[in-house]
Amino acid sequence: MASSSEIGLAAGMNILTAIAFLVAFAILRIQPLNDRVYFPKWYLKGLRNDPLQSGAFVQKFVNLDFRSYLRFLNWMPAALHMPEPELIDHAGLDSVVYLRIYLTGLKIFVPIACLAFTVMVPVNWTNRTLEQSKLTFTEIDKLSISNIPTGSNRFWTHLVMAYTFTFWTCYVLKREYEIIAAMRLHFIASEQRRPDQFTVLVRNVPPDPDETVNELVEHFFLVNHPDHYLSHQVVYDANFLSNLVNERKTKQNWLDYYQLKYNRNNQSKRPSMKTGYLGLCGKRVDAIDYYQSEIDKLSKEICKEREKITKSSKYVMPAAFVSFKTRWGAAVCAQTEQSRNPTIWLTEWAPEPRDVYWDNLAIPFVSLTIRRLIIAVAFFFLTFFFMIPIAFVQSLANIDGIVKAAPFMKGLLEVKFVTSVIQGVLPGIALKIFLIILPSILMMMSKFEGFISISTLERRSATRYYIFQFINVFLGSIITGTAFQQLNNFIHQSANEIPVTIGASIPMKATFFITYIMVDGWAGVAGEILRIKPLIFYHLKNFFLVKTEKDREEAMNPGSLTFNTGEPQIQLYFLLGLVYAAVTPILLPFIVVFFGLAYVVYRHQIINVYHQQYESAGAFWPDVHGRIITALIVSQLLLMGLLSTKEATQSTPLLIVLPVLTIWFHRFCKGRYEPAFVRYPLQEAMMKDTLERAREPCLNVKNYLENAYVHPVFNNANRWDGIDDGVSDDEWPKEPTLVATKRSSRTTTPAQSQRSESTRTLLCVTDERSCP
Amino acid sequence: MASSSEIGLAAGMNILTAIAFLVAFAILRIQPLNDRVYFPKWYLKGLRNDPLQSGAFVQKFVNLDFRSYLRFLNWMPAALHMPEPELIDHAGLDSVVYLRIYLTGLKIFVPIACLAFTVMVPVNWTNRTLEQSKLTFTEIDKLSISNIPTGSNRFWTHLVMAYTFTFWTCYVLKREYEIIAAMRLHFIASEQRRPDQFTVLVRNVPPDPDETVNELVEHFFLVNHPDHYLSHQVVYDANFLSNLVNERKTKQNWLDYYQLKYNRNNQSKRPSMKTGYLGLCGKRVDAIDYYQSEIDKLSKEICKEREKITKSSKYVMPAAFVSFKTRWGAAVCAQTEQSRNPTIWLTEWAPEPRDVYWDNLAIPFVSLTIRRLIIAVAFFFLTFFFMIPIAFVQSLANIDGIVKAAPFMKGLLEVKFVTSVIQGVLPGIALKIFLIILPSILMMMSKFEGFISISTLERRSATRYYIFQFINVFLGSIITGTAFQQLNNFIHQSANEIPVTIGASIPMKATFFITYIMVDGWAGVAGEILRIKPLIFYHLKNFFLVKTEKDREEAMNPGSLTFNTGEPQIQLYFLLGLVYAAVTPILLPFIVVFFGLAYVVYRHQIINVYHQQYESAGAFWPDVHGRIITALIVSQLLLMGLLSTKEATQSTPLLIVLPVLTIWFHRFCKGRYEPAFVRYPLQEAMMKDTLERAREPCLNVKNYLENAYVHPVFNNANRWDGIDDGVSDDEWPKEPTLVATKRSSRTTTPAQSQRSESTRTLLCVTDERSCP
Repeated sequence: MASSSEIGLAAGMNILTAIAFLVAFAILRIQPLNDRVYFPKWYLKGLRNDPLQSGAFVQKFVNLDFRSYLRFLNWMPAALHMPEPELIDHAGLDSVVYLRIYLTGLKIFVPIACLAFTVMVPVNWTNRTLEQSKLTFTEIDKLSISNIPTGSNRFWTHLVMAYTFTFWTCYVLKREYEIIAAMRLHFIASEQRRPDQFTVLVRNVPPDPDETVNELVEHFFLVNHPDHYLSHQVVYDANFLSNLVNERKTKQNWLDYYQLKYNRNNQSKRPSMKTGYLGLCGKRVDAIDYYQSEIDKLSKEICKEREKITKSSKYVMPAAFVSFKTRWGAAVCAQTEQSRNPTIWLTEWAPEPRDVYWDNLAIPFVSLTIRRLIIAVAFFFLTFFFMIPIAFVQSLANIDGIVKAAPFMKGLLEVKFVTSVIQGVLPGIALKIFLIILPSILMMMSKFEGFISISTLERRSATRYYIFQFINVFLGSIITGTAFQQLNNFIHQSANEIPVTIGASIPMKATFFITYIMVDGWAGVAGEILRIKPLIFYHLKNFFLVKTEKDREEAMNPGSLTFNTGEPQIQLYFLLGLVYAAVTPILLPFIVVFFGLAYVVYRHQIINVYHQQYESAGAFWPDVHGRIITALIVSQLLLMGLLSTKEATQSTPLLIVLPVLTIWFHRFCKGRYEPAFVRYPLQEAMMKDTLERAREPCLNVKNYLENAYVHPVFNNANRWDGIDDGVSDDEWPKEPTLVATKRSSRTTTPAQSQRSESTRTLLCVTDERSCP
Repeated sequence: MASSSEIGLAAGMNILTAIAFLVAFAILRIQPLNDRVYFPKWYLKGLRNDPLQSGAFVQKFVNLDFRSYLRFLNWMPAALHMPEPELIDHAGLDSVVYLRIYLTGLKIFVPIACLAFTVMVPVNWTNRTLEQSKLTFTEIDKLSISNIPTGSNRFWTHLVMAYTFTFWTCYVLKREYEIIAAMRLHFIASEQRRPDQFTVLVRNVPPDPDETVNELVEHFFLVNHPDHYLSHQVVYDANFLSNLVNERKTKQNWLDYYQLKYNRNNQSKRPSMKTGYLGLCGKRVDAIDYYQSEIDKLSKEICKEREKITKSSKYVMPAAFVSFKTRWGAAVCAQTEQSRNPTIWLTEWAPEPRDVYWDNLAIPFVSLTIRRLIIAVAFFFLTFFFMIPIAFVQSLANIDGIVKAAPFMKGLLEVKFVTSVIQGVLPGIALKIFLIILPSILMMMSKFEGFISISTLERRSATRYYIFQFINVFLGSIITGTAFQQLNNFIHQSANEIPVTIGASIPMKATFFITYIMVDGWAGVAGEILRIKPLIFYHLKNFFLVKTEKDREEAMNPGSLTFNTGEPQIQLYFLLGLVYAAVTPILLPFIVVFFGLAYVVYRHQIINVYHQQYESAGAFWPDVHGRIITALIVSQLLLMGLLSTKEATQSTPLLIVLPVLTIWFHRFCKGRYEPAFVRYPLQEAMMKDTLERAREPCLNVKNYLENAYVHPVFNNANRWDGIDDGVSDDEWPKEPTLVATKRSSRTTTPAQSQRSESTRTLLCVTDERSCP
């Protein structure tokens, strides 16, 4: 265990690192040269102009106004200054709700820390257990529960504190849930008209021998939602086309670059290039001509592919975006069961158009359940056995292995320094690489599972990442050994011993976790604001690669909030805070500082840097809430285990009440607030519809929705630099407004009336369209 | 362990008992005297007349046709004869689906038993382990897995069999789920128009200072379901009134009796009675006058109470039955979220009128969650600690205690015979009484939890009863000791030891469970068909109490399927069958005989005896399915534990796959079939609406629904023997068709448009009513 002076040293070093980062940031951000790195959001919004285009030459790159260096911390109040409603307008509700996670951390831990320091620290401190025990101990241990003699009555303090902390946490959680649910509903109610409010995604349209998917969808909804159905957009399998379009985009970019170069050289010398790998080998050709011909070739191919997609029914996936005349109609359709077979005609709210993950729209129901099984098994093995392949790689990557594989390096490897570096670094590298690509692996798993929106994918990955971290970082640090060894131990231990084993080693790991918080939390957050990687990459790209203005825009790489990695990280701090609150309260100030710093930094980043990818209106809050509750229950169980080793057995029955109450609280919150995140109340929909009808009586919803859910490749294909690829928008198959049913009438009366039903509605539809 | 000859003897005795019951039944049922006991359903349907009213005097009571005695088993083919669709018409879908539980048992266990006897019995039998072990063993043990030597390769047979049994069970379960879901949907689609198809129950109507519940409900639904809302019926708190009406009913019955007596005596002597307890003491009065005056008094009171209920808003509960013009509208409202606060305006399908549990309609949301917590805790204690109060009562009920409490019995208690009887019987009685009232306790718990229909109450109680039986009968028999001792053991055992402990003692308990099946299963079912209790009670009542024809009808007491006790009992047999299938296959034939016998007996009872209380269209099947899956998983885990004691460790990883696959199968079925039992697809609703519109274009749904959901006491009050209690139906407050809103317009536009919205709809409503 580290002594308190060591901890002090570590704290000092980390504080210095963090301050160094902050100072570096304060200096770098006011250099015009870095403007696009630190304020990309304003560029993307079109609210900021390039400082490079005005002023004296030196001032273009370096800030010479020395007064601005004196105010180097003024970004902090600026970050806190923007009020919440304005922030929602500026960066979306998701960002604001994400910030509220940090705020929740502050709300929970600041009072808990104060209480712990006024009540528990004196109670722990005024004992002489450790001094009498002849064990080595530190000042930190004297502040912790370890300093209380076995069987002491002082444990009642910890019991009462555990109750207080639980009730306070639940109170804060309940208030936050309430506020965020209200914010979400207000946001949904007050925001602009959005296509997803009117649209429902239908999946697993059953195959029909008589009708195409297009006709089938139309008939089904005309019959079953006669008064509300407006139009629909079938989903095409356009992944190959998408690849082609991307390829052409790259080539077009190169063409622009060479054209620019040629023009800049006063059209004296036509640029040339090699056709081989990375332009390093192959035949030397005229660059402009080469790219021109390549683009033409691709355009033709794209043309053909598009035609194929529109003509052949093979490319139509059994899914469609169905739009309704009113939000009420869409809310009804999204929340109800359509068919007697619950695996076909599955309806759900359409995600925002930019949130759709197109590749997964056509996975059938049976396949979905099988995929879920496969991923569940795979994730289990990933979590508990990931060390096996890494250990295998590590065993390969030793000196002997390298010598065997590459005999020519033998001379080099005989140098002692090189050997020790390799032996010191290599084993760690495999693990490090794995941890870096872990979020991507988890994301791939979620994609394989078949979720249809990016937001759900991220939420799912976050859940998995949290579980992985909980088992491999939290438990793995407390009980050393691989996750599989732990699992094996737990299986062979009795149920009441597990919390005891973990609980007993908790106080001993406090110093480790304090260091962890400072390194990963403090320095990590300070590093986030410095944006070292984007800064370096931007300048590198700007120097070497940026060919056109578009390239420069792309080089900015504003990034976005990465919920799938960021949120599980925060949750680890909630877990540490709650677990240690009643055990080693000295850890709490470190947690509080983390939350405070992170709140300011991320608020700044959200205002100035991050570019929002999608808007889910805070749909992730139930997950956040659930994980804090999990942390609370874990902390209660571990405290129970710890106290039972301290022979404070009379308190165990009282502590059992806490998890029961917490679980009940969770269920209460789930019933009370979660529906606001899952369903869309009809009252809201009706209110918004009525308002809209009053304000814009002649709104043509159909026109508004027409192209909202077309695969981006069809939208983008024409938009990219205005290239005409031979297929105009008009040629794109419009949804027919009247499709006569081809189905031969099998039943007598219902089919009859269904058809009359549908014609009646069609009249309505066309009626509405007569509105100017 | 009992020897095989002992088992043979027990089997013989139980078979004889069962046959004796069946013969007794065959003789008793053809006596005209007992006709009402064995065929009450036909009387209730009005399809059978009293044989007492015709024929010779003796033939009225005793069947003298000796040929009919020869065909004494012909009720069996008769019971099997009625085809399923006709049975649905005759007894409702619930009964038919209930029978299918037995059928599922046969489908699962007959092939499993055949396979086990052809494959596993030879494999087990051809070993000499038990003979060499010098342990005492029986022939039954020689057939079981105990006879296979430790670490033998023969365990692969059991492994393969476990896979086969699992796949076969899952296959049967899937097919049954499929069939029953189709039956349910067909039943719902093809049946008569029913009020609950059009009606939604709204609970937790929020309090409003400006409007009454009545007005509030109307306005809310006129605004939010403008095209579909038809009418509504608020719920009154009429429990006191209900008591009064019941009291008057009893008194009326006595009045009828005395009137009849007076008339039969040729009006010579007016009957008199005493007013005290049970007519045994008190003043002697003229009976007819007395009851006449009592009834008059009660009628006045009822009148006053009704007036109070209709006038005072205190009696209006914040709940209402809202009816829609179409099934589509009701389906939409039942499946969607109404308000942004998910704890108010809770909508769900209205249960059938006779299925409503009126007392629970007004429990607010927060109270509901608290009630659930209380009941969860209470049930936990009931399951694990029920032995404590019983042991306490037992300790009181010993000889010394009785002598102390009642010294006058001292003389009697000195007789040795009496003492031994008391000591032998008393301790058991407390437990027996507890077990008899246990279903009622569980039902009370469910009622306290706040479910609003009798069918849900029964389903919930069944779940609890199953858990109780699983822990206290199944586990309690295998590992002797109270449930709490088991729990304590399990907590102190490691997770992988629990299945080992239980699994290892399973083969030893086979003979016990075989006896259990014969006593509880075979004899129980045979006793069920004999209806001993109703038979005795009917004749007792008929002799002593029956005063009027109505009394005789009530004395019949047809009973009904008691899902809350019957289904958990069957599930115990599923559990035993699946657990022992791979361990001691000799148990399987006993299970098969049980299922076969029970199927025939209950089919007969359903056709001839039981009177259906409500119709839930087989809504309980997901529970049944889930519990069979649970049994399957338990059997797999226990087999795993058992095999690991047999040092067949190489098979453990292969066995772990089974529960994973089974859980996945359960999730698949849940997604695939459960929605058919929970939600009502819009396609079905629309189809049925369209058909109905075509067939009866001028149907007045409003009139049809008007009194469907009036509290039964208001309906019954007037119906009972046509007594006019002074309040005619017309005086009963009709739902106003147009209620002007009293709310002052707080917001400007929305309220405005809401109001115009509602007036528009009201016009529609009145429009429709102009239809003849």
